[in-house]
Amino acid sequence: MRRAAEEAGRQGLAALVVAPSPDLRYLCGYDPMPLERPTLLVLRPGGEPRMLVPELERLLAASAPGSRVFDLVGWTDGDDPYDAAAGMLPHEGRIGAGDRMWAAHLIGLQAAVPGARFEPASRVLGRLRAVKDDEELAALRRAGRAADETFRQILRARFQGRREEEVAADLADLLVANGHASADFTIVASGANAASPHHEPGGRTILPRDAVVMDFGGELAGYYSDTSRTVVVGEEPEGFREVYELVHEAQEAAFRAVRPGVPAQDVDAVARGIIEEAGYGDRFIHRTGHGIGLEVHEDPYIVRGNDSRLDVGTTFSIEPGIYLEGRFGVRIEDIVAVTADGADRFNRSTRDLQVVD
Amino acid sequence: MRRAAEEAGRQGLAALVVAPSPDLRYLCGYDPMPLERPTLLVLRPGGEPRMLVPELERLLAASAPGSRVFDLVGWTDGDDPYDAAAGMLPHEGRIGAGDRMWAAHLIGLQAAVPGARFEPASRVLGRLRAVKDDEELAALRRAGRAADETFRQILRARFQGRREEEVAADLADLLVANGHASADFTIVASGANAASPHHEPGGRTILPRDAVVMDFGGELAGYYSDTSRTVVVGEEPEGFREVYELVHEAQEAAFRAVRPGVPAQDVDAVARGIIEEAGYGDRFIHRTGHGIGLEVHEDPYIVRGNDSRLDVGTTFSIEPGIYLEGRFGVRIEDIVAVTADGADRFNRSTRDLQVVD
Repeated sequence: MRRAAEEAGRQGLAALVVAPSPDLRYLCGYDPMPLERPTLLVLRPGGEPRMLVPELERLLAASAPGSRVFDLVGWTDGDDPYDAAAGMLPHEGRIGAGDRMWAAHLIGLQAAVPGARFEPASRVLGRLRAVKDDEELAALRRAGRAADETFRQILRARFQGRREEEVAADLADLLVANGHASADFTIVASGANAASPHHEPGGRTILPRDAVVMDFGGELAGYYSDTSRTVVVGEEPEGFREVYELVHEAQEAAFRAVRPGVPAQDVDAVARGIIEEAGYGDRFIHRTGHGIGLEVHEDPYIVRGNDSRLDVGTTFSIEPGIYLEGRFGVRIEDIVAVTADGADRFNRSTRDLQVVD
Repeated sequence: MRRAAEEAGRQGLAALVVAPSPDLRYLCGYDPMPLERPTLLVLRPGGEPRMLVPELERLLAASAPGSRVFDLVGWTDGDDPYDAAAGMLPHEGRIGAGDRMWAAHLIGLQAAVPGARFEPASRVLGRLRAVKDDEELAALRRAGRAADETFRQILRARFQGRREEEVAADLADLLVANGHASADFTIVASGANAASPHHEPGGRTILPRDAVVMDFGGELAGYYSDTSRTVVVGEEPEGFREVYELVHEAQEAAFRAVRPGVPAQDVDAVARGIIEEAGYGDRFIHRTGHGIGLEVHEDPYIVRGNDSRLDVGTTFSIEPGIYLEGRFGVRIEDIVAVTADGADRFNRSTRDLQVVD
């Protein structure tokens, strides 16, 4: 909380205001459900942290790890919580609002302190959260290993003749069996569905010669895994091998481009350049990656336009893909961490094309 | 979508803009994960619905039930999605933003259409969603029955000598065994912990003479259950019976006060009046209830200051409670629906004090 308030001050912000979210968990270890009743942590450069809480959650908040250093201010159902928040916020200048705060709460705050200007708190918190300490890196490494083991085991499953949602259920079970507290996403996209990067696995029966994109992950000790692999069921579909090798090469080249001080967008440009040169640029329809930690997607985004430089300890995905509508798709994704002289992969399962039954 | 746009127009709004959330699911059946990449449905009175989607989710969005009636506008990673949204929104007047939209997205929209004024879309959508149709009522009734069966079965469990989190795990298993797709909350608050309404069940071992507040629910066919019961382990703690009977009486009286046309706050006042008269007013530290449907908490809130009138088909909780710090707590909660001549309870499990082992 002290570092966040200082960084806010350095950037000229008069305060940060954060609602229940991974930001709040990061700052003070308090993690209630986000609800229509606002809970708001206010940090000000040079000031003491204060937290506005619904009166019925006062005892709950008082037991949070960070609670010994902040004052609790309660508000009662039927009163206006934004009036109470106005007493804790500066009435002018710039205020960073937690990115995931609900719009209804932000609108309430904007009305309560009309002289202030709100901007996303990620400009401050995103940078702090991007760089992981040793404990965080260890948690992400463990999550990566559990995801790798999940992939190794799913290769022994039957694909052909089963529905996507059945294989997705297997992935979820394996994620938990390998140590995840929860399985949070299990994309299984087969045949033409694999051309839809965020396909919702459904009732389609997987057929011979399908390519199958699997993108899966979950939470382990508060941190997430997120891995993608593409496999084929028996023989490869027409034209598949060239696309697979291209994505594989782009993923490898982007990984090799990572080192401290490199702008995030340069890593994207490396992967994209290889795919563009081969004529598939318009079928690589998403950025190359995203930061990962307390959230599956967080700063830094590995995307054109993001010129922020990568620091040692920053963790993110590298996941180029090519999607041919009506035919197939390919995506290969690992989580990596920036090290002093390059990058470390937290996923080690094979990226060579695997054939399943 | 048509009804929402019309109602927005009646209230003088130039548009509604809704991100992934229960609002979006209600309006068009599309339910992707809320993410840092904005997906935004825009409704305008007299206009056709349009949806802004990340390019990589275009195929996903095109398969949503409502997609046949809206135009999809794609935006690509690296471009500014709020610029794209500005092309779909009015540049002045009032715009309703979905209550759960992330603050980062609202701030992006506010910068993109600085001439417009944003307010919570719940002023329009909350009223529409509050009144359930027959199919929704049937889903909520089923969820209520599954929660009732869960309570009946947990009464046969052992409480004494087990940790709160163990009983909470039993509740979660029973919710699913009785038909819920997921168990979403299972508060088990024993002894002095029961004085914290949103207590997080933990390692405390349940003892003889504890009161135990259980507040549990989950999702069934898209709709939620939410029930609270308070039981005692063997003998009652000192002074408990009087408080229990008072909460029981307040719950019953509030239920009997429900009928079409009654302001929501009057139902709160009935429960609160009984508890205040007995001298416990300052220990009833929350509102009497909340609407329920696609969200556990939604409009209408049964709280002082809410003078909106209850319509036939509106569903909400009635859950007075009394919390004595350091001693015990009591809460009794049922879901009810407003009927032509009163109200119907969706929870029928006994509210008489139950003794557990």
